[in-house]
Amino acid sequence: MKCRVCREPAVIDVRRQNANYCRDHFLRMCRDQVAKAIAEFDMLRPGERVLVAVSGGKDSLACWHLLRELGYEADGFVIGLGIGEYSDESTQYARDFAEQRGLTLHYCNLREEHGFDVPTAAKATRRVPCSACGLSKRHLFDAAAREHGYDVVATGHNLDDEAAVLFGNVLRWQTDYLGRQLPVLPGENGFPRKVKPLVRLGERETAAYCVLTGIDYIVEECPMAEGNKHLGYKAALNEIELESPGSKHDFYFGFLKRASARFASDVESQHRELSACTRCGAPTPEDVCAFCKLVERSRGHEPVTLRARR
Amino acid sequence: MKCRVCREPAVIDVRRQNANYCRDHFLRMCRDQVAKAIAEFDMLRPGERVLVAVSGGKDSLACWHLLRELGYEADGFVIGLGIGEYSDESTQYARDFAEQRGLTLHYCNLREEHGFDVPTAAKATRRVPCSACGLSKRHLFDAAAREHGYDVVATGHNLDDEAAVLFGNVLRWQTDYLGRQLPVLPGENGFPRKVKPLVRLGERETAAYCVLTGIDYIVEECPMAEGNKHLGYKAALNEIELESPGSKHDFYFGFLKRASARFASDVESQHRELSACTRCGAPTPEDVCAFCKLVERSRGHEPVTLRARR
Repeated sequence: MKCRVCREPAVIDVRRQNANYCRDHFLRMCRDQVAKAIAEFDMLRPGERVLVAVSGGKDSLACWHLLRELGYEADGFVIGLGIGEYSDESTQYARDFAEQRGLTLHYCNLREEHGFDVPTAAKATRRVPCSACGLSKRHLFDAAAREHGYDVVATGHNLDDEAAVLFGNVLRWQTDYLGRQLPVLPGENGFPRKVKPLVRLGERETAAYCVLTGIDYIVEECPMAEGNKHLGYKAALNEIELESPGSKHDFYFGFLKRASARFASDVESQHRELSACTRCGAPTPEDVCAFCKLVERSRGHEPVTLRARR
Repeated sequence: MKCRVCREPAVIDVRRQNANYCRDHFLRMCRDQVAKAIAEFDMLRPGERVLVAVSGGKDSLACWHLLRELGYEADGFVIGLGIGEYSDESTQYARDFAEQRGLTLHYCNLREEHGFDVPTAAKATRRVPCSACGLSKRHLFDAAAREHGYDVVATGHNLDDEAAVLFGNVLRWQTDYLGRQLPVLPGENGFPRKVKPLVRLGERETAAYCVLTGIDYIVEECPMAEGNKHLGYKAALNEIELESPGSKHDFYFGFLKRASARFASDVESQHRELSACTRCGAPTPEDVCAFCKLVERSRGHEPVTLRARR
């Protein structure tokens, strides 16, 4: 197995590209793919300040690292979600990453600052935890960007993530979600631009990127995500990819190229008038934003303690 | 386990409907679903003559049986495709079905009438056998409908088939295929209307329908289809369906309702002018139709003999 570029011994194969790479050319390939995604979708412009949504997992840390490597002024933001030891450990990985590299990491603890955590919110809302978690993260990243003057929020969503989300949206033909499943959402109405610089990298590549650059990250999946549909969609697409390498890439980028625009007019938020939330000031179509409603619903609840399953 | 309708002991559960049925009410449910599909998509009108594309498998025989049960004037057409013993056996099932019920079954043998068979065509064209097979079947069904004066060709595609084909089309965003993946294709330019009356039934139900009505059918899958992508797509969707019963139904009917029309303008054949094939007279956008080209390419080839794998 030889490197596609230099013919020296390779350390990794990327079946989708039908290519093998040595360490250095693999890392260069990753940088090139991120640079290509940024250019292709006009994600970032020189001089913009980027806030990276960091979880402590491989994707968000690789994203932060790659943006710095490419010369962007990128700081991090991590949230203590209160998902037992998992949250403590993953936050620590983010802190260590920042500290070792002298980078700025903003931090927010859901319980300390807003009086609830994800397990409690899930119980209070009687919905899957990923729902309250996603809502909280989106809100807090947006608010942090506004507060600290960042132009853009970058997330570590990789090709596998985007393909699985697309599969879920297509299985139910959720036309509004399809209309806004883009690698860039423009900043408007007080929301920062959202970008996904890793959409051209698979999750096996982001993991390898971390290993080969010495980035320590939390390896476990979130314990509350277990058994969620997203993981089932990933598994189904993995089977397809195994038979036909490149399927995920073609599925996602074929969508962007040939289908996405057909659903653009269905995006609900486009048709809404926004005003400031009467509690927190965030832009919202109603009087009180969804996050402040979640805060209210969750606060009255007895905290839920996650038991370790080790 | 009790019948949803009469509370007598049930013989089958249909998880998608969250329902169990006794024999009689299951058969009635199948008829109702077919009647509903026919009405919903305006597939057939009273007095029209229907030619059922019969393979000898569960779906096409159930389709024929159900159309007769619903009072349609439906005859069958089976093709000897030359796929070794599989073709001989499946054709025999079709013949027995017709004979036992005094129905008209048209027959065409590819090798005797056109000088080739599917395995040979696959070798000659160096493509997957399903490609030459599908092309031949479509051509011969259309030609038989014209020759014998049928208004409509009905095929036994069930919900599982359509969902798997849709998945394949969506994975590659083949917008022209998506634009014409409909349960009814209108008859025009010398082509008969094409209808799929079983789109509201899963393949487990068509199998149960045959068993419960005493229809003998060939159980084996076509040996040449082994390992094709379609079967991989079915397996992936089966996993999803197992977790969330009704997923296939929502995927397919959600597509028809909310997405299909967005791809209608991409259908290539709409933009083509057709004239009669100079060899066989079939409508074609070129001088010679694709089937006659296949005949020509395959005839020069030494026949391929399939070896039994028992």
